[in-house]
Amino acid sequence: MRHKVEKLRINYKTLEDFKKFKQYGQQELSMLEDLEANMIENDSDSPFYGIYFGDKLVARMSLYRIQAKYDRYFEPRQDYLELWKLEVLPDYQGRGYGKALVEFAKTFGRPIKTNGRVNSSEFWNSMGFTPATYDVERDRGENPFVWYPTGVKEQEN
Amino acid sequence: MRHKVEKLRINYKTLEDFKKFKQYGQQELSMLEDLEANMIENDSDSPFYGIYFGDKLVARMSLYRIQAKYDRYFEPRQDYLELWKLEVLPDYQGRGYGKALVEFAKTFGRPIKTNGRVNSSEFWNSMGFTPATYDVERDRGENPFVWYPTGVKEQEN
Repeated sequence: MRHKVEKLRINYKTLEDFKKFKQYGQQELSMLEDLEANMIENDSDSPFYGIYFGDKLVARMSLYRIQAKYDRYFEPRQDYLELWKLEVLPDYQGRGYGKALVEFAKTFGRPIKTNGRVNSSEFWNSMGFTPATYDVERDRGENPFVWYPTGVKEQEN
Repeated sequence: MRHKVEKLRINYKTLEDFKKFKQYGQQELSMLEDLEANMIENDSDSPFYGIYFGDKLVARMSLYRIQAKYDRYFEPRQDYLELWKLEVLPDYQGRGYGKALVEFAKTFGRPIKTNGRVNSSEFWNSMGFTPATYDVERDRGENPFVWYPTGVKEQEN
């Protein structure tokens, strides 16, 4: 089964759609405020990608490019993608939506880092991610999982 | 009701106790590996604080001092505390254990930053924390809440 991943635009409809997701927080509130204050245009680019079922947003993730100078995970040091807020609405789980979003993220060919939520390690392992060696200074309360494209390995700390 | 907060020691008993908490992840696994490989001593200091009920660890948090040069939240720029993995075991919730841990963290007199979990904003507000202005570069997928001691305010970005 194939799912079409779309880059989401910031507008009132998208932000209303976001309210259905559990991981709705200050990022979304900040986007809404910026829109209301005309600090950004309706239909600005967002770091979010999603999948629609009909006209309903049923899955989303945020994908953000981190510059090489901030890279503390990968060798050689390079621009990489940070992935967060991967979430599928409860009624749509188990149909490959989450997998489709992660596979889409891989198509950029860049290393990916994510913070694995509680009990998510089986999912990330199945997607070819591996746990990064934990470093308290760098990772604080995170459970970092990383995906290495060919030729990339873990950075020595 | 007063609860006694203790700095936890890293040893096999503590790490066994940690398994009862939901937010058990790579940080705890890494501590266990370090202990097994004799890379740290039994009874080393950890960034964890906890509360015992009898000899049972029923609540914990991690508290870690971040150096001023990395401070992107507070004005004037200074060493601050990052708080994470605040958690009370289900049977012990609603008795003020979480509150006691956060109040303890405040006694250091330093600013505190935490990443609020889903639906936690009411708790953090009640503890005197405020949402930090969201910044995608800095905060990624986090919901940062901060506590300002007297004389400290939000850093302009």
